[in-house]
Amino acid sequence: MKRALAVSLIFVPVAAIASGGADAAHHASLLMWIAVILVAAKFGSLVERIGQPAVLGELLVGILIGNLGLIGIDIASGIPDEPIIAFLAELGVVVLLFQIGLESNVQQMLAVGARATAVAVVGVVVPFLLGTALVGPWLLPGLDAKAYLFIGATLTATSVGITGRVFRDLGCLQTPESRIVLGAAVIDDVLGLVILAVVSAIVTTGSLDATGLAWIIAKALLFLTGAIVIGQHAAPWFSRGFARINTGVGMKLTVALATGLTFAWLASLMDLAPIVGAFAAGLVLDDVIFRDYERPQLEADIDGALASADADTRARVGAVIEAHRHRHLEDLIGPIGHFLVPFFFVVTGMHVKLDLLADPKALAIAAGLTVAAIAGKIVAGIVAGPVDRWLVGWGMVPRGEVGLIFAATGMGLGVVTQGTFSVIVIMVVVTTLVTPPMLAWLIGKRARRHSL
Amino acid sequence: MKRALAVSLIFVPVAAIASGGADAAHHASLLMWIAVILVAAKFGSLVERIGQPAVLGELLVGILIGNLGLIGIDIASGIPDEPIIAFLAELGVVVLLFQIGLESNVQQMLAVGARATAVAVVGVVVPFLLGTALVGPWLLPGLDAKAYLFIGATLTATSVGITGRVFRDLGCLQTPESRIVLGAAVIDDVLGLVILAVVSAIVTTGSLDATGLAWIIAKALLFLTGAIVIGQHAAPWFSRGFARINTGVGMKLTVALATGLTFAWLASLMDLAPIVGAFAAGLVLDDVIFRDYERPQLEADIDGALASADADTRARVGAVIEAHRHRHLEDLIGPIGHFLVPFFFVVTGMHVKLDLLADPKALAIAAGLTVAAIAGKIVAGIVAGPVDRWLVGWGMVPRGEVGLIFAATGMGLGVVTQGTFSVIVIMVVVTTLVTPPMLAWLIGKRARRHSL
Repeated sequence: MKRALAVSLIFVPVAAIASGGADAAHHASLLMWIAVILVAAKFGSLVERIGQPAVLGELLVGILIGNLGLIGIDIASGIPDEPIIAFLAELGVVVLLFQIGLESNVQQMLAVGARATAVAVVGVVVPFLLGTALVGPWLLPGLDAKAYLFIGATLTATSVGITGRVFRDLGCLQTPESRIVLGAAVIDDVLGLVILAVVSAIVTTGSLDATGLAWIIAKALLFLTGAIVIGQHAAPWFSRGFARINTGVGMKLTVALATGLTFAWLASLMDLAPIVGAFAAGLVLDDVIFRDYERPQLEADIDGALASADADTRARVGAVIEAHRHRHLEDLIGPIGHFLVPFFFVVTGMHVKLDLLADPKALAIAAGLTVAAIAGKIVAGIVAGPVDRWLVGWGMVPRGEVGLIFAATGMGLGVVTQGTFSVIVIMVVVTTLVTPPMLAWLIGKRARRHSL
Repeated sequence: MKRALAVSLIFVPVAAIASGGADAAHHASLLMWIAVILVAAKFGSLVERIGQPAVLGELLVGILIGNLGLIGIDIASGIPDEPIIAFLAELGVVVLLFQIGLESNVQQMLAVGARATAVAVVGVVVPFLLGTALVGPWLLPGLDAKAYLFIGATLTATSVGITGRVFRDLGCLQTPESRIVLGAAVIDDVLGLVILAVVSAIVTTGSLDATGLAWIIAKALLFLTGAIVIGQHAAPWFSRGFARINTGVGMKLTVALATGLTFAWLASLMDLAPIVGAFAAGLVLDDVIFRDYERPQLEADIDGALASADADTRARVGAVIEAHRHRHLEDLIGPIGHFLVPFFFVVTGMHVKLDLLADPKALAIAAGLTVAAIAGKIVAGIVAGPVDRWLVGWGMVPRGEVGLIFAATGMGLGVVTQGTFSVIVIMVVVTTLVTPPMLAWLIGKRARRHSL
């Protein structure tokens, strides 16, 4: 009996999709939903016509699809929570942060390290104080002091997916502002772990476990330094090793992707967000590591066609090809990003339930909380040094999923009520949606100033 | 209460991965498994050193990982059945058949249509008769006549993933043999529907529902002709429409992928395998459809660098670029294929349970059944016309998941016993594993003959 069961599992996933059973129909409908989400994302990119980054359009079409139920079209309910769709979305943001990491390197990030740390610390302390001591008690009077601690903690979060994507959409990843925000978001992820541990400890036991806290910090720092120090030395070694199996583009892509995924996994083992690991992997990898691998066929063929050309032409075309060389890895990851990244943003949009906005009182409280959330991060921009401080500050504004984790933890501990949670959700949604247009406007303003 | 529940779902997938909960750990471990499977596939490609196609290595490392439990290392059990891994594998074979379709077009397939049909029909009739009337009763005496019908039906299947991949690995997709096998496999999928319906009807009601059967055939033919006729006219129209949103590579990739996924979904609505739909989409699409879209940046930059070169150089480099133009779409889908296709083969390997082979009696019966399975398809190669008939015949040999669906259906109807099912599983595994080396040997032999 046991053997027969084991046997019947052979090839079952494929069998399932072809067999016309419930699984097959479900999987086939997912193929359709993947197509729908991809195409919807592209319709969303129409917002570029009005000067907005494509990511805003992806979020908005997601909200549109996710709320079709409100006008009686209940086809998309459950889709954003479908485990496979949800995983593809997660994989999408991991690939995005990996791509963003590839556009930079460790030295460039360390160069802004002190300023990124300052921005992260101020961007955690000020919103925390605002939430705990001022806005929380004022907007939601009469709650337990512990509830205000969690409201403050929620305001400290920074979700870097939105900002990273906006900077990329608008071609600003190479600016110091972008690097400061990315660095600060990584540090914020570590600080967030500490805050969550401290606040949870205060709420549950009333006292701090210093050893436990030291261990949380040590693990996070161990990952970050390990990924960067060991990663920088190990990556060329691995790359050369795999080049001994073969040097095709498939191998190059595999080594790069596997590094990104492994770092994401390791980060999560250390309780950091997987995207922090993927970003670190991107920083560590660059095209130099892969010089043992085959060049794209087009380049080799053009070199051949130029053999008898004059020296001047050869030099000019050679310079063009050389200038593209550092893009090979990005070109290989690019299609995977085009496939998976929109998933994250459309699915994030689908999770937004517009009926939340129907409660005027919750809306009013959420508006106050949102102002505090934005103000706290804009203050952090002030310590960013001689750069566009508004851009850094606004770049830190999106709270994304991290803020919700804090709020959900507080709800799990019985400190945050469902009403408070709803208000926090609105704040998270608003900070996510106002950031792309604000960043686009700030970047556009600067471009106009420079062109004067 | 309901509202709070809806609220708590917002951003939950992302929250889950970052929260350190059970879901997060599971998703993070999947990121690791994706990396492991990708890297394992590349170790598998070492078989190329001994002249074998990479796909054989991917199957073998899959078998290795999937059977680590036999030597007490029980880390990978459950991974091939994990829903997300299983879906990525399915997506992989859909992408593979889409890529294979892109390498050909409708006219080229129709040119071999008659011969492909002949191969498909003979390759269904002969194995069916062999299994039902000869090998079944001889190897497994004393069963109900209905059981032999199902054994015969199982032998009729053709699984085109393996052969398509081998032809691609060895650069033979443009040969008439490859096109005949691909066309015959599509027709076989339709014939398989008919056989399954007929055999099931005989077993359950003892009579044929002619209307139901006609409807099954009509739906399949409706999809195939619709996909090709309507698809060929609609694809350029859609492509131009989306180019009005924007003409970037992301849009081009999205239009292509969404077409492949939609066709796969439509095929499955018509009870055909999704890979048949993906293949049809690949046939319908080509680079000409996308001429309104941006060229790769490198090409444009090289054109610029050549502006002042002599006419001769410009013409030579222009010819190289022109020769690459029809590869743009394949180049864009390529990285997605490198990412997902190995999944299908490694996971297929992981589903093979080696402990099945521990039963000598089952092995002996399976050996007889396997010989019949191979002989029946090699006979089909004879009607392939003036081509390498051995290559066509062997190309039809892998039974893959389709054979198992027949066997599983028979088991569901109480006609196929667990013992018979085990024997069929071994036959399916063996036909899958012997095909890559046989095709490689036949292709190599022909190459050697031509070079004499």
